[in-house]
Amino acid sequence: MSEERIYLDHASGGMLLPSVQRELLRFLVEVQAAPGGGHREAREAREEVEKARQRVAHFLGAKESEGVVFTSGGTEAVQSGIRGWGESVGKGTLYLSEMEHPAVENAVRRLEKNGFTVVRVPVGGDGRFKWDGVKAGSGVGLVCVHLAHHDLGTVQSISDARKFAEKVGAKLFVDATHGAGWVPLDVEEGADLVALSGHRLGAPKGSGALWIRSGFPWKAQLEGGRQEGDRRAGTENLPAIVGFGVAAEEWSKSGESFRSEAQKAQKILAEEILKKISSAKLHGPKVGMERNPSHLAISFAGLEAESLALVLDRVGLAVRGGSGCVTREMKIPPAMKAIGAKPEEARALILFTMGINSTMDRMVEAAVRVAKGVKRLQAALP
Amino acid sequence: MSEERIYLDHASGGMLLPSVQRELLRFLVEVQAAPGGGHREAREAREEVEKARQRVAHFLGAKESEGVVFTSGGTEAVQSGIRGWGESVGKGTLYLSEMEHPAVENAVRRLEKNGFTVVRVPVGGDGRFKWDGVKAGSGVGLVCVHLAHHDLGTVQSISDARKFAEKVGAKLFVDATHGAGWVPLDVEEGADLVALSGHRLGAPKGSGALWIRSGFPWKAQLEGGRQEGDRRAGTENLPAIVGFGVAAEEWSKSGESFRSEAQKAQKILAEEILKKISSAKLHGPKVGMERNPSHLAISFAGLEAESLALVLDRVGLAVRGGSGCVTREMKIPPAMKAIGAKPEEARALILFTMGINSTMDRMVEAAVRVAKGVKRLQAALP
Repeated sequence: MSEERIYLDHASGGMLLPSVQRELLRFLVEVQAAPGGGHREAREAREEVEKARQRVAHFLGAKESEGVVFTSGGTEAVQSGIRGWGESVGKGTLYLSEMEHPAVENAVRRLEKNGFTVVRVPVGGDGRFKWDGVKAGSGVGLVCVHLAHHDLGTVQSISDARKFAEKVGAKLFVDATHGAGWVPLDVEEGADLVALSGHRLGAPKGSGALWIRSGFPWKAQLEGGRQEGDRRAGTENLPAIVGFGVAAEEWSKSGESFRSEAQKAQKILAEEILKKISSAKLHGPKVGMERNPSHLAISFAGLEAESLALVLDRVGLAVRGGSGCVTREMKIPPAMKAIGAKPEEARALILFTMGINSTMDRMVEAAVRVAKGVKRLQAALP
Repeated sequence: MSEERIYLDHASGGMLLPSVQRELLRFLVEVQAAPGGGHREAREAREEVEKARQRVAHFLGAKESEGVVFTSGGTEAVQSGIRGWGESVGKGTLYLSEMEHPAVENAVRRLEKNGFTVVRVPVGGDGRFKWDGVKAGSGVGLVCVHLAHHDLGTVQSISDARKFAEKVGAKLFVDATHGAGWVPLDVEEGADLVALSGHRLGAPKGSGALWIRSGFPWKAQLEGGRQEGDRRAGTENLPAIVGFGVAAEEWSKSGESFRSEAQKAQKILAEEILKKISSAKLHGPKVGMERNPSHLAISFAGLEAESLALVLDRVGLAVRGGSGCVTREMKIPPAMKAIGAKPEEARALILFTMGINSTMDRMVEAAVRVAKGVKRLQAALP
């Protein structure tokens, strides 16, 4: 353990689930036919894609699998979801926080340039949306909420978002690219549009999905061939889709166990770090039901996030320093600004994101390494 | 051989090159880190992505690798290429034939709706562009030409397209999603923008690239994180990118041999089919330098393409009946209309697309099965 590297940047990119590994092996040598043809290989591919679609629908709690559109990943799902709604309705209002993922933020800004109204929803100190007092915009609307925040790990209440959407007569988009699996989600409880990232579920890179409620106003954004029922053009990525289906099925079966193991590991990692390092501060909600169990956002005031991440790398711990996803103009993670974190905390944010191999003993050792790295960096400073 | 299935629908979806199979194996169990991070796993991923970028650039004859942007496939490359140009220039003229792939056609129609002018370029009986007499449109322009046609197999002259583009002061987009590898292409000879599909080169599904000449006016179409130098947001598909690099390298080394083997196989398949079946007619150019060596488009007048493809499937031959890619409104392949094929030929088009395992003895047997299938279907008709 003391020599083995510990990888805690799973949200950026991790490993395939063992069941997905086994499934993908055959695609290395098999013909990967396109499901659109009439021959046997194509028919078999079609059956595999539809089976995967059912598995993803089941994972989401969707009654019908038709709503699932496979994409190349979470970003495409988010962007095509929001922009596809915008193209369909022409004008209206978007409701979102100041700390959405850039994929959401940029899709909304594109629509804003085209005349859409944007209403910002404030968040509390733990990053939870504060719906009270948010005013209704004009025309049709789309409420954009994340399932779990990509930097803070905050879990949002989808039912509160649903209630607000109903109040203002808007539809509800849930960005579940972070949090899916780790946080239970049942689309029949009120989402109209949901974006998923496959790789964060241990499915292959290049897999993702957009779930679209029947009748939701939407237009395809990637046009060309007639794949995915004219909703997403481009040769189907058969291994990615099949692998995504296997991962979804595994989460449907074992999600409860993955979550409870992650909660235990998360609790230990947080406790050990906060115990060992006086400057360490957890941001977002406390460890518990309002936090993504695979995610910790901890600042080390006085240090600089990227430098600390490099030092931690040298002591055998891979983590993300700063925001998991920032755009050029962002100097500090927007979420840290939105929740009112101090600048010295905002500059010193480290993200620890766990996978299913993040066992408790590894977490104990990870905290030892964090303490070592922090001490080393502090000693090097003037 | 007589029992083994013969798969000749490689353009729709085929197999990985053996070198790609070997490379991808390790990704089943390795961490697939995102290249954006600061830790060792991320740095290694970044090196792998840049190596792949250099390999794809080298394959294209590009002097600098910076121009290569990895996408989720050919359709995304085409769509983001053309729409990205349109968004950058605001208005102008697009030059293209009536028989482009729907990914190209739909991107152009989107721009047309936004005020762009469209000038159609006529084609001859073999599908080659006829540039003489095509008039210049107003403002800046983009000439859209395919390297090899997806239905006819016609190879276009990129240097003729370049000359026309220069004459009208336009930039040149080459849709090389069909034909790349099988048809030599050197972007330094005059392309400004090139779209590639990875899977047609034996690279993984979900791989593709857009090559953008330095200084070409273009705006990113998929927005979110800062991947690919702010030109394509979304977690990098590490195995797909690395596999694409390996395939590109293999084509750079062995392309000449792949092409000459394919030419021999193609010649035998065409000759045997035309010899055995009196109604068979090759569309597009003759077998030779003006035809994609992995592609045959043959009609069997009097039969219906999809029915024939189903019968051929039952005699152990997987082929595509009708166009490789049609949109809802298309009853017959637009290319067959554009080259003036008779309706009974247009309705009876079969595409035979070869891969590197399409050996000559398999082609001889394939022709036997075609003859058997045609005879069987003819006998079943009134």
